[in-house]
Amino acid sequence: MHILVTGAAGFIGSHLCDRLLSRGHQLVGIDNLHLGRMRNIEHLSGNPAFRFEQLDCLDASGLDRLFKAARFEAVFHLAANSDIAAGNADRGLDLKLNQLTTTGILEAMHLNGVRRLFFSSTSAVFGEHEKALAEDDGPLQPISFYGASKLAAEAFVSVYSHTLGLRGVVFRFPNVVGERSTHGAIFDFIEKLRKDKSALHVLGDGRQTKPYLYVADLIDAIETAWAEPETALAVYNAAGEGATSVKEIAETVIAHFGTPETKIVYGGGARGWPGDVPRFSYNTAKLRSLGWSPKHDSGAAVRRSVEAIKANGF
Amino acid sequence: MHILVTGAAGFIGSHLCDRLLSRGHQLVGIDNLHLGRMRNIEHLSGNPAFRFEQLDCLDASGLDRLFKAARFEAVFHLAANSDIAAGNADRGLDLKLNQLTTTGILEAMHLNGVRRLFFSSTSAVFGEHEKALAEDDGPLQPISFYGASKLAAEAFVSVYSHTLGLRGVVFRFPNVVGERSTHGAIFDFIEKLRKDKSALHVLGDGRQTKPYLYVADLIDAIETAWAEPETALAVYNAAGEGATSVKEIAETVIAHFGTPETKIVYGGGARGWPGDVPRFSYNTAKLRSLGWSPKHDSGAAVRRSVEAIKANGF
Repeated sequence: MHILVTGAAGFIGSHLCDRLLSRGHQLVGIDNLHLGRMRNIEHLSGNPAFRFEQLDCLDASGLDRLFKAARFEAVFHLAANSDIAAGNADRGLDLKLNQLTTTGILEAMHLNGVRRLFFSSTSAVFGEHEKALAEDDGPLQPISFYGASKLAAEAFVSVYSHTLGLRGVVFRFPNVVGERSTHGAIFDFIEKLRKDKSALHVLGDGRQTKPYLYVADLIDAIETAWAEPETALAVYNAAGEGATSVKEIAETVIAHFGTPETKIVYGGGARGWPGDVPRFSYNTAKLRSLGWSPKHDSGAAVRRSVEAIKANGF
Repeated sequence: MHILVTGAAGFIGSHLCDRLLSRGHQLVGIDNLHLGRMRNIEHLSGNPAFRFEQLDCLDASGLDRLFKAARFEAVFHLAANSDIAAGNADRGLDLKLNQLTTTGILEAMHLNGVRRLFFSSTSAVFGEHEKALAEDDGPLQPISFYGASKLAAEAFVSVYSHTLGLRGVVFRFPNVVGERSTHGAIFDFIEKLRKDKSALHVLGDGRQTKPYLYVADLIDAIETAWAEPETALAVYNAAGEGATSVKEIAETVIAHFGTPETKIVYGGGARGWPGDVPRFSYNTAKLRSLGWSPKHDSGAAVRRSVEAIKANGF
């Protein structure tokens, strides 16, 4: 299949490219290199089934040219600002980078007759809830600009799917960890320890506890959802098993990148930042009913990620 | 209270201004006059508690100037493109006129310390469902650009409410009828009959059946929701009682604006247009538990609207 991957040089995008290429697909990968890094895909530079182009999904004429030149059969749209704190600091950022990139892709697909879309949404569309929510549950009350912009994008994927013939897979990503990550707690802690091994400053009280999913398990989940028969719109939750506290992540990172003397200094408060959801769990029965389950639980996902980054760098 | 009403010259906006003024509030009404009409508010021109300004909610510097000059205590944000068919024909229209107007208002409120927002959302955020959905139910899968843009706007209202101190009331409007309407079946049918009384061309098969709410009953519902204690985010469904088919509306309009010889010609198909939800009902128990109920059922709402327009014009 001839496939476009947006955000191809990003953390998850680059892993997805590896997997799709291993399945024999022909890929064009685009990335504006805002968060993505060429080193994530440099190992693909000699692969005849892969072509990279630096292109921003906000560049409508660039997208149109690309779609007219290549006849894509499917689009995996992963380009986004995945840095939640940055999106809260600049309140217009996520609307542009997460939503308007998506409406741009939707329009390019519609104008060029490309029907199959995989869209990387997020569990943050739900906001903060007591119970484990399934795909069809409400309410959807995001508490971060990241979650709001992804919910807004989902809304437009819904219209193109239900009224304009698109076949959309909306996949709500959980917290994902692994090599090539460009942000998140593990990334931040390692960067901090590289500058100063005496103390690790941690946002919040360290008790924020979340299920982390290892990136290879996420790619398995994407393949599972993608293999399902096409419907107008299919929505999937994915999540790690178990949960890991920020304190445990800090201790794991210190074990590999710190010293026995490294101290953890907590900033205090239940949230790492405004819009941080300190504790959550999602119902993933739908994906599990299709045979998917993660090979690493949350603790193993964190440990394996830290070890892989220690061995090979980000 | 000193209140800003956006979309003040529109159908519902102008009725809301009348009601808020009758309660002793001081209003500034703005409208870009895209759908709104000065004749809807010309009766307010001598009222010292009301000031009108032609201003577009997409004009960020204009909004900023207005917010800095007037110290609003609350904003009723009704400005929108409420013409669903127009929004589907021009796929960028509703994103701009319904969503970006809202993020503009949210930002102006945030920057100027205004906390209380009433936001006019729509039952179209739900999409098409078999069961009567309540406020907290999902899934939210809009099938029109109108519904998608309003869901996107709700998402951003949610963030400003949950993380930036806004107190938001999200009010999901149903199909509303009454004098001063600027679009919708009654409006279209009367306009068509004014041009040609021999035949009334109707979109769809005439069997699309929806609950219609009379505008005065809607304003009652808004007052009921607004009187509730402030919370970060409160969401309300409103809907008419009973339901009226397009065929019944056509017959009522013909009885007042046609002749005994006027024929109804149906275009055929279950939907009036792509994105039309042919049949729906919403759970309004939340608003009813606060004491609201409409004084007119759907049939009476349609009849009263047609009679009022016959007597006084649009």
